[in-house]
Amino acid sequence: MRNSRRGEVDPFIVMDVMEAARAAEEAGRHIIHMEVGQPSTPAPAGARRALAQAMEQDALGYTVALGLPALRKRIAQLYGEWYNVDLDWNRVVVTPGSSGAFILAFTALFDRGARVGIGEPGYPSYRQILKALDLEPVGLPARPENRLQPVPADFAGLNLDGLMVASPANPSGTMLDRDAMAALVGACAETGTSFISDEIYHGIEYEAKAVTALEVTDDCYVINSFSKYFSMTGWRVGWMVVPEDHVRLVERIAQNMFICPPHVSQVAALHAMECREELDANMAVYAKNRAMMIEGLPKAGFDRIAPPDGAFYIYADVSHLTNDSRAFAAEILEKAGVAVTPGLDFDPVRGAGTLRFSYARSTADMEEGLRRLTRFMQERSA
Amino acid sequence: MRNSRRGEVDPFIVMDVMEAARAAEEAGRHIIHMEVGQPSTPAPAGARRALAQAMEQDALGYTVALGLPALRKRIAQLYGEWYNVDLDWNRVVVTPGSSGAFILAFTALFDRGARVGIGEPGYPSYRQILKALDLEPVGLPARPENRLQPVPADFAGLNLDGLMVASPANPSGTMLDRDAMAALVGACAETGTSFISDEIYHGIEYEAKAVTALEVTDDCYVINSFSKYFSMTGWRVGWMVVPEDHVRLVERIAQNMFICPPHVSQVAALHAMECREELDANMAVYAKNRAMMIEGLPKAGFDRIAPPDGAFYIYADVSHLTNDSRAFAAEILEKAGVAVTPGLDFDPVRGAGTLRFSYARSTADMEEGLRRLTRFMQERSA
Repeated sequence: MRNSRRGEVDPFIVMDVMEAARAAEEAGRHIIHMEVGQPSTPAPAGARRALAQAMEQDALGYTVALGLPALRKRIAQLYGEWYNVDLDWNRVVVTPGSSGAFILAFTALFDRGARVGIGEPGYPSYRQILKALDLEPVGLPARPENRLQPVPADFAGLNLDGLMVASPANPSGTMLDRDAMAALVGACAETGTSFISDEIYHGIEYEAKAVTALEVTDDCYVINSFSKYFSMTGWRVGWMVVPEDHVRLVERIAQNMFICPPHVSQVAALHAMECREELDANMAVYAKNRAMMIEGLPKAGFDRIAPPDGAFYIYADVSHLTNDSRAFAAEILEKAGVAVTPGLDFDPVRGAGTLRFSYARSTADMEEGLRRLTRFMQERSA
Repeated sequence: MRNSRRGEVDPFIVMDVMEAARAAEEAGRHIIHMEVGQPSTPAPAGARRALAQAMEQDALGYTVALGLPALRKRIAQLYGEWYNVDLDWNRVVVTPGSSGAFILAFTALFDRGARVGIGEPGYPSYRQILKALDLEPVGLPARPENRLQPVPADFAGLNLDGLMVASPANPSGTMLDRDAMAALVGACAETGTSFISDEIYHGIEYEAKAVTALEVTDDCYVINSFSKYFSMTGWRVGWMVVPEDHVRLVERIAQNMFICPPHVSQVAALHAMECREELDANMAVYAKNRAMMIEGLPKAGFDRIAPPDGAFYIYADVSHLTNDSRAFAAEILEKAGVAVTPGLDFDPVRGAGTLRFSYARSTADMEEGLRRLTRFMQERSA
């Protein structure tokens, strides 16, 4: 059988690193994982306990497409707690991860050929999902002086149908403050550009609270997930907030494309929201790791970094060390035993000169990783 | 914000019935549910037990996009057990339900505008997902003398890019035998039409074993799920078997669109496959319900039915009783307290004269439902 052209999406370059790391481990080597994009912690104990109980009491069949009403209400409440935003729970759509939310949002908002701006560097799947849905991703090279976040000037005159932003961003960890968010929202409103805000790393922030687009406007799609702060990546449950007059439309698409998000994951997510203490303890580890990385990476020789506002990544400019981040990552894995992500996944052009370091794992792992990176760089320049 | 045109998919008509049923129950009425498309049984106890244990031992983060290798291997083994087909487990892709499999298959196989044949009556979401992906569903009105399954003559000269079949089918419960399947596969091969076989109801069959397309050809996509026979609808885990040279392509699409199927559901699914005894007990209930319905529906006055080969539905021609199945279903709910599905969801044209009765619930419910339907029809003709 023939395959489609739109299905020919690019591979993740980090997969090569992960496969090489796996092979190295199988051969008996010890590898430090700074390439991962997820917590190493499980879902909160309270969430798992509640699910174990629910499994004994309920058939856990399909839920309605928009998700369990109790979960939608609890998510709406979170907007009061986190941002002091009064959110109508009817606007909350539970989704099969933020991945499912992207598919729903892009399908609900854009017809084929629509041009959707995405900041570069950014999460690689934005581009691939857009392409698979016959939409046109328009990469917006973000500037270091704007902390690698897009600004209105980056897309002026580009005639975008949509703009997708992420704050805190992956891979940079930088955030849009309220003024920066408002400037983007305002510029989009002027040109009829649909505004989508990916807020998946909210809750994992260090100096200041992240700003939700809902503080600025109701005329936007906001996407979030239980994967990161709530430590539930493998559960595939997230959510989306949409304008009131889009709810029915999104509901129908979700009914047909997904039927519903996983029921077990919805039950666990609802209870995860009450596990503040355990989640705060996870946060304390990230904060410690971050401090250690901000100090240790420059000492090791990776000195072109900006302290991240949130998430658990540090994006390093290594263009003075290599013009092939893929080969450089392979070299670091081979010689230092540390897996890192080449920037090419996040920025098809400038990523040849960048690396992403994740500090989502344990503090002990980060310490050992920094020791190895330091030694590697010393030997390299020797 | 504007919404897209392709996002404007049709609503499920059965949703009105379900909402009316919910409202009636809230007002204190007792309703028998013959509109449901899922087992009322939970996931097998062994599956839930295994998951409860796994939750204590594993962080259950992302799996690889194609799914847990142990689950893929166990699914491949099932093809030996059920069909005596020797299947390379590397061709098995674990998916977020059959819904996720449809999205993956359509994206991997078809570019925009591609024409995909679907039998009518059929599962309504085929049409809606195709439209949402900018593909053109081509309805093939299936004939009663072909037991409501498509035959090559139904699409000769239509220049289809793809053909989607379902056996046992929803809503009819009829199956394609090996010759019928081979005829369709052969006709598709001649015209370069991609062949997709939805086998989600396999395992729920009464007189003869269902035939998998893989008994006839390797050049096809086969879609299945843990929802029905394995009684795990809400878990959103299914699978797809693809030609060897499509695996990498599907993997990349899955990485980007879904990251992975829910990890917890994959763990439960793996263990559900060893719960034969409990699943056989579920099957015994369906078999008993089916016999009761085949006898009772004609006695009640719904005599234009064909005994289903599989699944848990009976599709009834009621065109001598109504030309508005939607209104008729509302009347049955109102007067008899039985929720049924109007055929319009499955066949946009002829469905105005058909109803689907589901017998997935308990035998006691089916007994009471038949009593109510009998009384309703007596009063109606009085």
